Amino acid sequence: MNAFKDMSMQAMGLAARHAAKSLARASTEQKNAALTAMARNLRQSVETLLAANAIDLKTARDKDYKAAFVDRLTLTPSRIDGMAKGIEVIAALPDPVGRIMASWSTPNDLKFERVAVPIGVIGIIYESRPNVTADAGSLCLKSGNAAILRGGSDSFETSKAITQCLQQGLAEAGLDGNAIQMVMTSSREAVGEMLSGLNGTIDLIVPRGGKSLTARVQSEARVPVFAHLEGICHVYVDRDADLAMAEKVILNAKMRRTGVCGAAETILVDRAIAGEALPKIIKALNDAACEVRGDAETQAFSALVKAATEEDWRTEYLDAIIAIRVVDGVDQAIAHIAAYGSQHTESIITTNTKTAEHFLKEVDSAIVMHNASTQFADGGEFGFGAEIGIATGRMHARGPVGLEQLTTFKYKVRGAGQLRPV
Amino acid sequence: MNAFKDMSMQAMGLAARHAAKSLARASTEQKNAALTAMARNLRQSVETLLAANAIDLKTARDKDYKAAFVDRLTLTPSRIDGMAKGIEVIAALPDPVGRIMASWSTPNDLKFERVAVPIGVIGIIYESRPNVTADAGSLCLKSGNAAILRGGSDSFETSKAITQCLQQGLAEAGLDGNAIQMVMTSSREAVGEMLSGLNGTIDLIVPRGGKSLTARVQSEARVPVFAHLEGICHVYVDRDADLAMAEKVILNAKMRRTGVCGAAETILVDRAIAGEALPKIIKALNDAACEVRGDAETQAFSALVKAATEEDWRTEYLDAIIAIRVVDGVDQAIAHIAAYGSQHTESIITTNTKTAEHFLKEVDSAIVMHNASTQFADGGEFGFGAEIGIATGRMHARGPVGLEQLTTFKYKVRGAGQLRPV
Repeated sequence: MNAFKDMSMQAMGLAARHAAKSLARASTEQKNAALTAMARNLRQSVETLLAANAIDLKTARDKDYKAAFVDRLTLTPSRIDGMAKGIEVIAALPDPVGRIMASWSTPNDLKFERVAVPIGVIGIIYESRPNVTADAGSLCLKSGNAAILRGGSDSFETSKAITQCLQQGLAEAGLDGNAIQMVMTSSREAVGEMLSGLNGTIDLIVPRGGKSLTARVQSEARVPVFAHLEGICHVYVDRDADLAMAEKVILNAKMRRTGVCGAAETILVDRAIAGEALPKIIKALNDAACEVRGDAETQAFSALVKAATEEDWRTEYLDAIIAIRVVDGVDQAIAHIAAYGSQHTESIITTNTKTAEHFLKEVDSAIVMHNASTQFADGGEFGFGAEIGIATGRMHARGPVGLEQLTTFKYKVRGAGQLRPV
Repeated sequence: MNAFKDMSMQAMGLAARHAAKSLARASTEQKNAALTAMARNLRQSVETLLAANAIDLKTARDKDYKAAFVDRLTLTPSRIDGMAKGIEVIAALPDPVGRIMASWSTPNDLKFERVAVPIGVIGIIYESRPNVTADAGSLCLKSGNAAILRGGSDSFETSKAITQCLQQGLAEAGLDGNAIQMVMTSSREAVGEMLSGLNGTIDLIVPRGGKSLTARVQSEARVPVFAHLEGICHVYVDRDADLAMAEKVILNAKMRRTGVCGAAETILVDRAIAGEALPKIIKALNDAACEVRGDAETQAFSALVKAATEEDWRTEYLDAIIAIRVVDGVDQAIAHIAAYGSQHTESIITTNTKTAEHFLKEVDSAIVMHNASTQFADGGEFGFGAEIGIATGRMHARGPVGLEQLTTFKYKVRGAGQLRPV
């Protein structure tokens, strides 16, 4: 329970580095035992967790926070069970540490292996969703990384109670309790210290939250960051699209959940089929209570369409609003995405394999799809089991960041006394 | 030949970004045609290159630079041919772009592929080795990345002449000449601008040079850096070592070339065999004109050993000097390496597979070897064909950085109209 001593940020970094070293050596069984104990502790601590949550909820209500915010902050027995189940899912996933990623020999009979090892110490900076504490802590543990968690001040008591359950699980499995630490101050300076890397003790920062948090992290961090600033996701409906499929995919991509980063924000429609496709697509969106904005050509197809401005092509609505633009075929769609996209997730709807492959090759986003909803942009849907977030950077991890992406690697080279010639 | 216009750094960044987009689409044949033309242009421009080099050499001599520096700066017909051959080697390597790194399906029959794509724009900041211009430019081209080269002012005329040969090769293959640009000012501010990322147009910085250059780059860069600050490489001689092998490996690891980052700087010797091993190892090093420094125990074995101080364990000599310490078995060796090493390359000499595997697992360096010389720390020796440098960071690339490490990836997802359930 060391994290609950009055620990300076620097000391916390050193403790995390120390814990990371022992964690890198921990066996899969030991890590899974800790995860199982964590899940059990959460379930056995329902009353404690709800009491801590009640303190945060009272403050939030006193501050007149919006209902949606209060709802996200609220724990219930069923949500606590959901967190515990999430940890058990991670326990059941394969251990990413020690994977042999590649192996080969050279003509002088040196045997090379590229082996996955943990990254080290990961700082997670998030807002007030209590479940991030459990998700991020358990993903870091399974991947052999120490975690420094810095949650929003509005969920302070809840996060602290959850962290206690996690740390007790570490202790029960004989692991260093400092493998998962929580920053005990709500000062913004603490975030600044984390972004500076805490004297080289933090290897990676993962922000989990809205655009302003991510923007601050990306602009100030002196260590690598896995994040996406926004998901301006596109669906392009090609001249060779199955239009019934296009309509269903668009509705799912936009409306399944409007607030997720993989939600479609802009639809690009090939001029060749715009007359046939657009009236149906616009009506379907309108029937689903989605506001439709469009360029002049799109507006000509329906009185339901409001005028889109240049700004609309750059906007992540995260709401039941969508922008539609008519384009002159796949290449103009690709150019639009290059100009306005956020390199997150785009999808082409077409029965023409050649056009699809062209789109898949040319679009420079982390995830490019053919005939599927952009809402599949999710580690679970990729088969990664769980994710700590989605990255749009170009280094190390892109797309969903799961357990494998939370590791790095080293080379093991086995020889028989080989000397390097001059 | 656009790079030789008076281009501001920001304009250079934009031109590189533009070139990177077309380069990402270039076929393997087109890239190889450019590389082949570059090699031919170098060979056909011997006189021009030597004339440009003569200007730099005159300045260097006027400034009374050391002979070793002048030698590194000097081009000869044979060195020009060596550069051309290096480019031809890169042309012959497999194209790393488009590699399918992984593929799988999920139960809903979505088909996932993880495909290699170029990183984008790479800034290379180096000192006065003219060959870096050709090496770095051609590695970036083959991996589909645009390069912004910033060489040392002492090799300005030489680098410019080499860059002209490379750009002519790009033009002959119909590629954008701005795919390889050279910074035409020798101001330090230009380096600062590159380290800031040139308004988001540079994705990665690779420094090639001494410790002070690398340290500046690592501390100031606002974009990812692939580099190692130093290579304090260790050889540990275990109680179960083949001592004849140990002696040969140590001599090679230290003396093959003392100035390379993979040269061994510290030898750790298991106390259990120190009495038998050390007198021979010390004599062999001394016979090879290597200065030996050691802890008190090592000194007791030979009058040839000078006293090592705490500072010696932290020193990358890059010279014919070595530090020796007696340790209490493999775990103390691992602890010494964790305390003093630079996470570059370490080797254990032992016939005991269990001890070797323990060392390979526990040592947290980019390259960990068993019964082999640390001087194998090189992309060519790894079978990568060529390298742009060696990285000791934990993100994206560790160890030798070859063509594959100069790529990132994206996910291609192929479906049949799948919608994500709520």
